[in-house]
Amino acid sequence: MKILLLNPNTTASMTQAIAAAARAVAAPGTEVRATQPSFGPVSIESHYDEAFAAAGVAEQVRLAAEDPPDATVIACFGDPGLDAAREVLDGPVLGIAEAAFHVASMLATGFSVVTTMTRTCVMAERLVQRYGFERSCRGIHGTDIPVLALEQAGEPMLRQIEEAARTALARDGSGAIVLGCAGMAPLCATLSDRLGVPVVDGVAAAVKLAEALVGLGLRTSRRGDYAQPLAKPFTGWAQGLAWEATRAAGGR
Amino acid sequence: MKILLLNPNTTASMTQAIAAAARAVAAPGTEVRATQPSFGPVSIESHYDEAFAAAGVAEQVRLAAEDPPDATVIACFGDPGLDAAREVLDGPVLGIAEAAFHVASMLATGFSVVTTMTRTCVMAERLVQRYGFERSCRGIHGTDIPVLALEQAGEPMLRQIEEAARTALARDGSGAIVLGCAGMAPLCATLSDRLGVPVVDGVAAAVKLAEALVGLGLRTSRRGDYAQPLAKPFTGWAQGLAWEATRAAGGR
Amino acid sequence: MKILLLNPNTTASMTQAIAAAARAVAAPGTEVRATQPSFGPVSIESHYDEAFAAAGVAEQVRLAAEDPPDATVIACFGDPGLDAAREVLDGPVLGIAEAAFHVASMLATGFSVVTTMTRTCVMAERLVQRYGFERSCRGIHGTDIPVLALEQAGEPMLRQIEEAARTALARDGSGAIVLGCAGMAPLCATLSDRLGVPVVDGVAAAVKLAEALVGLGLRTSRRGDYAQPLAKPFTGWAQGLAWEATRAAGGR
Amino acid sequence: MKILLLNPNTTASMTQAIAAAARAVAAPGTEVRATQPSFGPVSIESHYDEAFAAAGVAEQVRLAAEDPPDATVIACFGDPGLDAAREVLDGPVLGIAEAAFHVASMLATGFSVVTTMTRTCVMAERLVQRYGFERSCRGIHGTDIPVLALEQAGEPMLRQIEEAARTALARDGSGAIVLGCAGMAPLCATLSDRLGVPVVDGVAAAVKLAEALVGLGLRTSRRGDYAQPLAKPFTGWAQGLAWEATRAAGGR
Amino acid sequence: MKILLLNPNTTASMTQAIAAAARAVAAPGTEVRATQPSFGPVSIESHYDEAFAAAGVAEQVRLAAEDPPDATVIACFGDPGLDAAREVLDGPVLGIAEAAFHVASMLATGFSVVTTMTRTCVMAERLVQRYGFERSCRGIHGTDIPVLALEQAGEPMLRQIEEAARTALARDGSGAIVLGCAGMAPLCATLSDRLGVPVVDGVAAAVKLAEALVGLGLRTSRRGDYAQPLAKPFTGWAQGLAWEATRAAGGR
Amino acid sequence: MKILLLNPNTTASMTQAIAAAARAVAAPGTEVRATQPSFGPVSIESHYDEAFAAAGVAEQVRLAAEDPPDATVIACFGDPGLDAAREVLDGPVLGIAEAAFHVASMLATGFSVVTTMTRTCVMAERLVQRYGFERSCRGIHGTDIPVLALEQAGEPMLRQIEEAARTALARDGSGAIVLGCAGMAPLCATLSDRLGVPVVDGVAAAVKLAEALVGLGLRTSRRGDYAQPLAKPFTGWAQGLAWEATRAAGGR
Repeated sequence: MKILLLNPNTTASMTQAIAAAARAVAAPGTEVRATQPSFGPVSIESHYDEAFAAAGVAEQVRLAAEDPPDATVIACFGDPGLDAAREVLDGPVLGIAEAAFHVASMLATGFSVVTTMTRTCVMAERLVQRYGFERSCRGIHGTDIPVLALEQAGEPMLRQIEEAARTALARDGSGAIVLGCAGMAPLCATLSDRLGVPVVDGVAAAVKLAEALVGLGLRTSRRGDYAQPLAKPFTGWAQGLAWEATRAAGGR
Repeated sequence: MKILLLNPNTTASMTQAIAAAARAVAAPGTEVRATQPSFGPVSIESHYDEAFAAAGVAEQVRLAAEDPPDATVIACFGDPGLDAAREVLDGPVLGIAEAAFHVASMLATGFSVVTTMTRTCVMAERLVQRYGFERSCRGIHGTDIPVLALEQAGEPMLRQIEEAARTALARDGSGAIVLGCAGMAPLCATLSDRLGVPVVDGVAAAVKLAEALVGLGLRTSRRGDYAQPLAKPFTGWAQGLAWEATRAAGGR
Repeated sequence: MKILLLNPNTTASMTQAIAAAARAVAAPGTEVRATQPSFGPVSIESHYDEAFAAAGVAEQVRLAAEDPPDATVIACFGDPGLDAAREVLDGPVLGIAEAAFHVASMLATGFSVVTTMTRTCVMAERLVQRYGFERSCRGIHGTDIPVLALEQAGEPMLRQIEEAARTALARDGSGAIVLGCAGMAPLCATLSDRLGVPVVDGVAAAVKLAEALVGLGLRTSRRGDYAQPLAKPFTGWAQGLAWEATRAAGGR
Repeated sequence: MKILLLNPNTTASMTQAIAAAARAVAAPGTEVRATQPSFGPVSIESHYDEAFAAAGVAEQVRLAAEDPPDATVIACFGDPGLDAAREVLDGPVLGIAEAAFHVASMLATGFSVVTTMTRTCVMAERLVQRYGFERSCRGIHGTDIPVLALEQAGEPMLRQIEEAARTALARDGSGAIVLGCAGMAPLCATLSDRLGVPVVDGVAAAVKLAEALVGLGLRTSRRGDYAQPLAKPFTGWAQGLAWEATRAAGGR
Repeated sequence: MKILLLNPNTTASMTQAIAAAARAVAAPGTEVRATQPSFGPVSIESHYDEAFAAAGVAEQVRLAAEDPPDATVIACFGDPGLDAAREVLDGPVLGIAEAAFHVASMLATGFSVVTTMTRTCVMAERLVQRYGFERSCRGIHGTDIPVLALEQAGEPMLRQIEEAARTALARDGSGAIVLGCAGMAPLCATLSDRLGVPVVDGVAAAVKLAEALVGLGLRTSRRGDYAQPLAKPFTGWAQGLAWEATRAAGGR
Repeated sequence: MKILLLNPNTTASMTQAIAAAARAVAAPGTEVRATQPSFGPVSIESHYDEAFAAAGVAEQVRLAAEDPPDATVIACFGDPGLDAAREVLDGPVLGIAEAAFHVASMLATGFSVVTTMTRTCVMAERLVQRYGFERSCRGIHGTDIPVLALEQAGEPMLRQIEEAARTALARDGSGAIVLGCAGMAPLCATLSDRLGVPVVDGVAAAVKLAEALVGLGLRTSRRGDYAQPLAKPFTGWAQGLAWEATRAAGGR
């Protein structure tokens, strides 16, 4: 099967790192195609960044509709553009925060999130509320590590994240850790070994959940708010991304 | 004072109609400047549309930061880009759904929302949950009237909305109606007369709430997630909308 | 327009101080008439005090129905008698806690309340739950300053409130402060300057929200539980405050 | 033991009827003393009525503090003045709505409330939320029977309440009925026989719960917001009801 | 009346201690019959233990159906088998956690739970959520005292529990303590004296609430999910515990 | 990898049917071993049945600990014994209700549950609340089809379930169906074809989620309430199922 892995920021090296983390867990036979938008912020650390990133995800799924994947993963912990992607593509779409929350809740009664910029904790909080994990998620903790700094994560940074996780586990009384940034994916195995509790990386979680959904033959519902977008003109640079009335859903 | 009224869709005639509704309630001395994005969908009736509209709002507030308004109103019932706008501009920013919910909750114990496309009810539902109006909002009802059809609303359409409102009041046992689309603003007065209960138009509500906040000398907090965006490169068409490190918040 | 400003306690000097705070923000053309009940506690710092204060508010709005105001503000952070006032008067009625919560939620993702007696925190908590601000209100903090002591607030007391606010902001991770007592209104400007975050005084907020609602031509709904009171005999000292069957709602 | 049974309205015949219902279930050795306030509405069917009733309860418990009962029951389904009573008296205080909800939740997974005026359903709803019975309480249904009409309840009225209960059970899928007015107490046994499900009258429930609490040697906590009222002057007709600093809590 | 007191663990000495605590508060005329299952763990301190304990409760109530009690108390703070017991027996069934929460919520706005093993706090938390006491229950605190160690509780252990309670009261700002284990019942009076706040033992609370419900003539509803179990074969050791189609509910 | 598939009821033919449904979706290399308890009810349709079933699951996982599987699925829509199983086994454990809810929430904004006996809807409701799916789950609908009748499901029964699903989709406005009984698993494909919306069978969902978790190298947390059970004596028939102090967790 084919997974489309979307990095909503425009840093190609991060796209590659995330793709590597995805391929490391993908089943034989699962092909991962990774892209990022043609526009937007180099990292997503504010609401302002996210507004562009969601449109970037919309762009990428619209283009992918021409040769649709079996499933799609949105690899930013804000899950930007998730609903738009579900309208456009038939195959399941998962956000990495969504996936990580689901998986963590199956392994422990309570989990803690360790993420990058403290100012983004509110965004994770809103996703927790939206997805229904308010009881499971015992705390959301920022480290104020810039997203792009994770690309060169050495021992000091790894230690910083590890300590934040230990503090979170103790303070929250939780049993598992969710890594709150796609850029932390490469650190997951090491952190798991050191912490001795399940550590969940949303990139890997989303890939395996996507394989599960496709294996079940399930696709996004077309009834209700995930029906295909309505056809209408778009203006400006977005003109070519309009949804056309003649467009049939791939395979449905 | 100056209010920036943002129509997140790209239909200029709708921008004008919304601006007229805004000016009709604005205090003497309140100047309304209305714009819409340079790109995006002609109306917002799906998650896909909204992903672009949020970026369009981000574009508009970024441009407005050069000559900042005293307050800003986002005139689409999904309140797209609200948080991004609060990061960029110092003056208060209100979404019309947000404003309408606040106002309705001051006039009745329970209110019902009557909106356009049924598929967008979920979006209003999420805002109700996000803003805390789950107890006050007793129901959200779609009429499946396309947003742009409201521009030519004649008696039949008015009657359709009126009947939907009566049904909602009876079914929900609520005491007020919230109009769920900026395009319904011109119909507010007539519906109020016919229904005999408070009918709240978010455009007008947001304008008056904006005047109230400015009158109180209050501005968006810069502590926490509404701090100004972080400076970083943006690529592609969005390049010029990057937030620069040297940019000082206007007046703060 | 005419605002009736009700001080639910019987301390006339406090009524005057609150009225001054109200007039300081009122628009030109807004006349503020301030009263307090003819009976009851000199301050409201317990449930027992509040039981009498709510009846005092009911007395005052009943008397005001003879020459009804355009809007009414109940100036005690417990919002006593709010629902009774909405049944009696046609113009909008706002409680200062209600108004402060609404306003603060438009300026920051999270706010903290700093109030007087710790024992009254539960009352504020119940209002937060009733109005739907459980997610926005991140903490309610008492200073154990008696309400009437605020009348002579000097630098030490101001400093005490300022420190409580700083502690609250840090502990709650919130972005704005709500002052939890009408008696704190005169301190709002100074606290805003010192804290560098929005500080919301409910008296001022309620006045401006009242102007907004009246400017929108909106009044309390008469459908449902805010319909006018039912006519019936009252006995004892309250005899003259009974609602009469022949009483028509002013202006409706 | 001695139970003080407070009828918050001023209809003495209703006080007697409620007292009879209380004595019918009281244990041998439990003496019921019933009073109503010296002022206020003859029935409680609106927020306005309730504002006076809460003060009436405060009056009555203040007077009772001179010769305190072992426990107190507030016999109005709005539980007016409950918190004030808990501050003033040492022995447990129960509201009849509170008691009925507690009892019903021990007998069925879901219960429905059948009450008098539809406009008061909101008041019951708020108590359900305050006490935590949102999951157990499956519906609140009004019959629009005036409270004082219950005093002459004949077969037609009994039939009306019975039908409302049957409809509620079916619509809500609940397993028990809570009678939403003290005036319905005399009808409880007959309704139980006819409906074949538990029917809970709050007056009887409160009396038995009061006996249970006193039997456990438990009294209201004096730590936190149920500490005794603070001493301060009261003015007007309420002057004599002020709490004095020298007043010691009876028996504690 | 006859109360069946079920100790869900298999430690007979604990059954006796719990029975003594129950008899100490029971009214004259209330006979307490105490049993424990014929199988299962000697104490309940994990989910694994509880799975067997719930079946043990089911065994005991099935046997008791031959000579049914007027009411039943399940004396383990996890309330295991509560719903099964309500299906089998007609008389009311109360769990001690359920009873303690109800009683504590009538005495204080907020209460704290002090229990045995920290790992069981999650179980208490789930009951708090199930019964609706999320607002009242301000904290759940473990002492890591093994359940069976309570049988020999001397001054050091008493002091440990007392300190845990004081810490909880301060940290949670609550007004009452709920003892989170049937084995703590004998310590209740001493803790009450020392702490100066209401301390609620669920065993005693359940006995008195059971007397109250029986005094009200109320029994578990047979409508909905508490209808009697369906008749069907059981296999293995449980064969004799099957519910038979010919079995009539005692007295209903 | 090896999946242990537990049928909590004692009907061997149902175990086989469920195992067939599991094997139909399992990946090559996934071996499914299916068992049922040695005791208990032939089907689970009441709280009483479930009390025994949970102990039956505990028995089976305890025995399996001797030769532990990589993952375990509990194939009854009440997810009985889920927490006990997580304490005993290291590999992930999933309940079929849990799995179905998770999967459905990834495919649609709202889903409806169609289950067997109406009296069991409350059990599903409690799981929805426990797992956090209160917003996603729009309704739970019973068909009153006995669990064992599903084994001979012919066209009439299939039609009955199909109609119940259509009614649920319309009434709830949801986009997906969750089948509320392991016995419905063989009907999933046909119902999907007929209904045109995603239909989720928890047995298949749990198998694929289990594969995903094992593929991620994740296991249940040992920190907090999912730590291994404490060693202690068990009496009666359960004696041999006690957890021993010398027992090391398999593979951890």
